[in-house]
Amino acid sequence: MSRSKIPNSPSIRRMPSYLHKLMLMHRNGEKHASTTRLAEYINLDTIIVRKDFELTGISGQPGVGYKTDELIAAIRRYLNWDRTCRACLVGAGSLGSALIGHEEFAEYGLEISAVFDSDPDRIDSVIHGHRILDVRRMQELLREDPPDIGIICVPSNCAQMVTDELIACGVKAFWNFANVCLKVPEDVIVQREVIAGGFAMLSVKLARRNSAQPDFSED
Amino acid sequence: MSRSKIPNSPSIRRMPSYLHKLMLMHRNGEKHASTTRLAEYINLDTIIVRKDFELTGISGQPGVGYKTDELIAAIRRYLNWDRTCRACLVGAGSLGSALIGHEEFAEYGLEISAVFDSDPDRIDSVIHGHRILDVRRMQELLREDPPDIGIICVPSNCAQMVTDELIACGVKAFWNFANVCLKVPEDVIVQREVIAGGFAMLSVKLARRNSAQPDFSED
Repeated sequence: MSRSKIPNSPSIRRMPSYLHKLMLMHRNGEKHASTTRLAEYINLDTIIVRKDFELTGISGQPGVGYKTDELIAAIRRYLNWDRTCRACLVGAGSLGSALIGHEEFAEYGLEISAVFDSDPDRIDSVIHGHRILDVRRMQELLREDPPDIGIICVPSNCAQMVTDELIACGVKAFWNFANVCLKVPEDVIVQREVIAGGFAMLSVKLARRNSAQPDFSED
Repeated sequence: MSRSKIPNSPSIRRMPSYLHKLMLMHRNGEKHASTTRLAEYINLDTIIVRKDFELTGISGQPGVGYKTDELIAAIRRYLNWDRTCRACLVGAGSLGSALIGHEEFAEYGLEISAVFDSDPDRIDSVIHGHRILDVRRMQELLREDPPDIGIICVPSNCAQMVTDELIACGVKAFWNFANVCLKVPEDVIVQREVIAGGFAMLSVKLARRNSAQPDFSED
């Protein structure tokens, strides 16, 4: 089954950057956030920033901007980040380890509750506070209370098999870092991360600069 | 300075996935690629796939699709991937190591020519065939012949300092994985990767499914 595009994806992808900055400002006791300042921070036009925030259903006050706490709450609500999302991660190699150690996930309500691997050298070791579990025990351990999402960090040739197993456990959404399109039933969601996608963006920006076209954003 | 958006960024981000699939097909001796098949692979409508390819300046033939080799060449040309891009990577932690070991970068013309770190335990060790160099030698080693891009994988509190040093060496473009907006001169390009951006997309898709809205893509 083919699917239509999700609208506003560049805006959605920018939300965590706004949120991170706003939470720093909030911790510093800054009660108001101006569009200009956030636009400067993210290196984009104020018009784009204002439109991004409109998506969350909040509007700023001319000359004052947004109330920091209200904007934080609006972004969290828009992203569904006002509740905890429980994840299991499969594949504790370099990329998996980097994700396990990514401290901001906690800020966003993402809680990695179990980490699996098939490598005997990794099983039972502890990475960023998580004991690595044997992937052969995955079904037994997850079936009763499946996590909200599965994070797939295994090599691409094992990704489908691992996904199928997690679907059998009742997992309904996947964040896929393997370089393969996963085949899933219609009621299962996949968000695929293509690391080279950012390099593609950078390459196009480079080509534009070299042909002296106008400025480029950090999209 | 604020910058305008780069158009077609979701399409650009999809290009590496098409390219990877097309190169597999090409290696299997498949001379033609149909839009339907590529749309199925990437799990999107054929209309979106056809529009993506139009950006590269190529059009398919009804009933036949695209010549695999011509489409590969067109995508490479569009992304400026028909030449080698030389990169240095700074910060050989989990994420940096994952990038150093990312085999497809070679397919895309990205060549990591030097890797730096400040950790005495990492310096002089070898990760995926790269000997880790002392970051204190960076200027001395790069100044004569600076790489095309700098890949920033250091903690966010060191990212600006490392970037400034690389700019002093003559580096004009950055792929930034640190969670901070880098301040750079106007002629320097930054592509920032926000890992949580994908989680934001997944969260919005989940919220939509739970409120029973229409289908979602893998954007």
